[in-house]
Amino acid sequence: MTDTAAPLRPSPHQVEEHLRQIIKLLEKHRLVETLVDRDRASPRHQLIESLVHRQHLVELQLKLHSLHPADIAYILEALPLEDRLLVWRQMRDEQGGEVLLEVSDAVRDWVIEVLERPALVKVLGQLDADDLADLAEAVAEDVLAEVLQTRNARDRDWLQTTMAYPEDQVGHLMSPDILTVRENQRVEQVLWLLRGREALPPNTDQLFVVDARHSFKGVLPLPALLLNDPQQPISALMMTDPVLFSPTDDADDAARAFERYDLVSAPVVNERGKLVGRLTVDEVMDYIREESEEDVLNMAGLQGDEDLFAPIWASARNRWLWLAVNLCTAFIASRAIGLFEDTITQIVALATLMPIIAGIGGNSGNQTTALVVRGLALGEITPENTWHLVFKELGVGLLNGLVWGATVGLFAWLLYRNLPLGGVMAAAMLLNLLLAALMGVAIPLTMHRLGRDPAMGSSVLLTFITDGMGFFIFLGLATVFLL
Amino acid sequence: MTDTAAPLRPSPHQVEEHLRQIIKLLEKHRLVETLVDRDRASPRHQLIESLVHRQHLVELQLKLHSLHPADIAYILEALPLEDRLLVWRQMRDEQGGEVLLEVSDAVRDWVIEVLERPALVKVLGQLDADDLADLAEAVAEDVLAEVLQTRNARDRDWLQTTMAYPEDQVGHLMSPDILTVRENQRVEQVLWLLRGREALPPNTDQLFVVDARHSFKGVLPLPALLLNDPQQPISALMMTDPVLFSPTDDADDAARAFERYDLVSAPVVNERGKLVGRLTVDEVMDYIREESEEDVLNMAGLQGDEDLFAPIWASARNRWLWLAVNLCTAFIASRAIGLFEDTITQIVALATLMPIIAGIGGNSGNQTTALVVRGLALGEITPENTWHLVFKELGVGLLNGLVWGATVGLFAWLLYRNLPLGGVMAAAMLLNLLLAALMGVAIPLTMHRLGRDPAMGSSVLLTFITDGMGFFIFLGLATVFLL
Repeated sequence: MTDTAAPLRPSPHQVEEHLRQIIKLLEKHRLVETLVDRDRASPRHQLIESLVHRQHLVELQLKLHSLHPADIAYILEALPLEDRLLVWRQMRDEQGGEVLLEVSDAVRDWVIEVLERPALVKVLGQLDADDLADLAEAVAEDVLAEVLQTRNARDRDWLQTTMAYPEDQVGHLMSPDILTVRENQRVEQVLWLLRGREALPPNTDQLFVVDARHSFKGVLPLPALLLNDPQQPISALMMTDPVLFSPTDDADDAARAFERYDLVSAPVVNERGKLVGRLTVDEVMDYIREESEEDVLNMAGLQGDEDLFAPIWASARNRWLWLAVNLCTAFIASRAIGLFEDTITQIVALATLMPIIAGIGGNSGNQTTALVVRGLALGEITPENTWHLVFKELGVGLLNGLVWGATVGLFAWLLYRNLPLGGVMAAAMLLNLLLAALMGVAIPLTMHRLGRDPAMGSSVLLTFITDGMGFFIFLGLATVFLL
Repeated sequence: MTDTAAPLRPSPHQVEEHLRQIIKLLEKHRLVETLVDRDRASPRHQLIESLVHRQHLVELQLKLHSLHPADIAYILEALPLEDRLLVWRQMRDEQGGEVLLEVSDAVRDWVIEVLERPALVKVLGQLDADDLADLAEAVAEDVLAEVLQTRNARDRDWLQTTMAYPEDQVGHLMSPDILTVRENQRVEQVLWLLRGREALPPNTDQLFVVDARHSFKGVLPLPALLLNDPQQPISALMMTDPVLFSPTDDADDAARAFERYDLVSAPVVNERGKLVGRLTVDEVMDYIREESEEDVLNMAGLQGDEDLFAPIWASARNRWLWLAVNLCTAFIASRAIGLFEDTITQIVALATLMPIIAGIGGNSGNQTTALVVRGLALGEITPENTWHLVFKELGVGLLNGLVWGATVGLFAWLLYRNLPLGGVMAAAMLLNLLLAALMGVAIPLTMHRLGRDPAMGSSVLLTFITDGMGFFIFLGLATVFLL
């Protein structure tokens, strides 16, 4: 956010009410449009309608102009595409940039796509270098070049610097608005310098101490300025070993450090010891939220962030990769059944019972996988404790296998009055749950060792194995013992 | 965290190295233990071993004493149960309280269970009222009463106040460490008052302005003290309409407000306008992380937060409810197959193909559900845009149904050289994907309307319907058209 613009009053408790009012205005607006269409014959009618029409837009504008950018962003996300554009057009020109920073990635991409080039250049022109860097990847290169023409060399440099780091590194998330002081200054000098400023950058809980060559020396917490004698030198008050990051540090690790140590801001220092930027808690919170939302959507089989009101075609494409993969695994797993079609013809009850074995195996394995994926994300699983984990999960699998195997065995026996069928069912359940426990640990661990994100795809692979092997074990045992 | 204790140096980059070193020390320690056991015969040997033994423990103690509580918490979480207790016992007495605040809920519960009562009372005695309130629910009432005996009336009052609010309300998360000033004071008076303090409470980015009756008047950002003339009155510098919360506000809404408006702290004001506490970004970040982790684990069918190294019995119990529910739905869905056993006996290929229809239906429906659950969590789905969403998802379902229906139909035709079978397969896939889209929206929306958390259980219910109806549609169509 640019720190010069006076922020409008945020309204955490009324934002849903604002949305409702805006939807009502949009409805009235559309109603008038329909009337105008129906009534092409009478020019006088048209004039009246068009005045009413305009009046609704003015009301909409007044409403929007009083809202905080984050609240407008929320409202845009909750509106279907055609309404969204109408609302966007009613904002004040200078609201566009701030709102663009606050919307979700999916809506941001939509705005960038739908705005005409001059409008887009104007909106992007409102952002400072730091915020522009957040959006730069989503914008076409030539548009970005046009926006940068009006910027000074420092802004252009900053953009190049941060964009050189991948999205999941600290260098990409850091911001350039740092306040620095020198070791040999005294508190009163720093206070005097600060009084010359209009405001401090948001989330400033500490100043950074550097030497003449901009080498990082330490941090000076703001309270130190307030609590100490104005004659004290900075060198006596600064902390020389704060938590600091390198621009190439993993953003996930930095996020975890912010949570663990309750940080508000932290210096970013490069390998030559120079202070290059600052990481703040608001960027980190946004990063955590985005990542965790993306994880949940990915686990459910959506490739990326999907706009709630994306066009059907775009939505379908976002889901195809996953469905295609699942279709392949389902086909292959079903071939395990194909092997035993003769057996099924003789004992058709097997066809009825087999989805139970496969299904519960998948559920149980996914429980293990979820636990292991979280353990890996928190860095809690090490080579030394892996075996411990495997044995524990096999133990849980054994216990569950005995309990649920007995349950389904009993059910099958009673339903079909066939004791051997019950026995085969119980044995197959036990074996499939043991396999699920083993695979539930092995699959995410292997993906992690191979340097892949274990949250993505572990569940597909696991369900594939518990389905295919579940069918195979059950029908195989039935062929051996029941025919 | 108590604000008086000097925090030890956090080590974001070395924490995994610390863990490795501690595991090595523990291994050496265990090795010696085994040797001592084997060699009971020689007292001299025993003495030597016991000295070596002690030396490892001393090394472990030195290591632990230098670590930040949050880093020790991480290490405890990554250790199997027996090592964990040994490590806990080697910490300095005064480290216990801070570490207990930092560990995950599952490990916290384990510590509280395993510590003997006097040790637990001692650890809890180190915490201030605010932190004690965070843990109070996990502690037995009589233990809590014993801890409170040594506290003053203010601490006891605070505990009663916060514990009266449920875990998901602002009142439960707020803290009592607020710095207040008066409207009629001048900047220099406030500065003078602050200089009398040792430190500010963590995450203090603003002071709170109250009147003589502790009624909330506004906030004074710390920078205002630094940037303005010391002669200015507070009334001229304070902001009178900041974001504030009521103790009964939903914690989720407060968390979203912290993210939206990039807050570091916010006042909590009761219905009579009195300032009762303060909400800070560190509490909010912990809340967000805990909630999102719990959501992921719940979606995978774990009832609560599960310790990675929980005992087998406790783990199994944590998973039974979900497995039992799934077993019931799987049984019922399988009865849909049972209705058509005659049909399967005549065309056994149906048994092979039916899991494909059910599986892809479930995958596709879960994609829709994930999107709707997120939209509901963000408050983006309103009565006004629900129909829009339903039609969009039905559109995606239709498109997917045509594409994937044709694919599986073609596959079935080629594999079994049976065109009508392919046709039935394609039609069943299309119908099941349309059903999945409709249910994918309807199930989470209905749960939300009924006041239940749509993230929990939506997926089970959806998979139940897509499985059962998938089997029914496919086998039903086959019975009508293929026999």
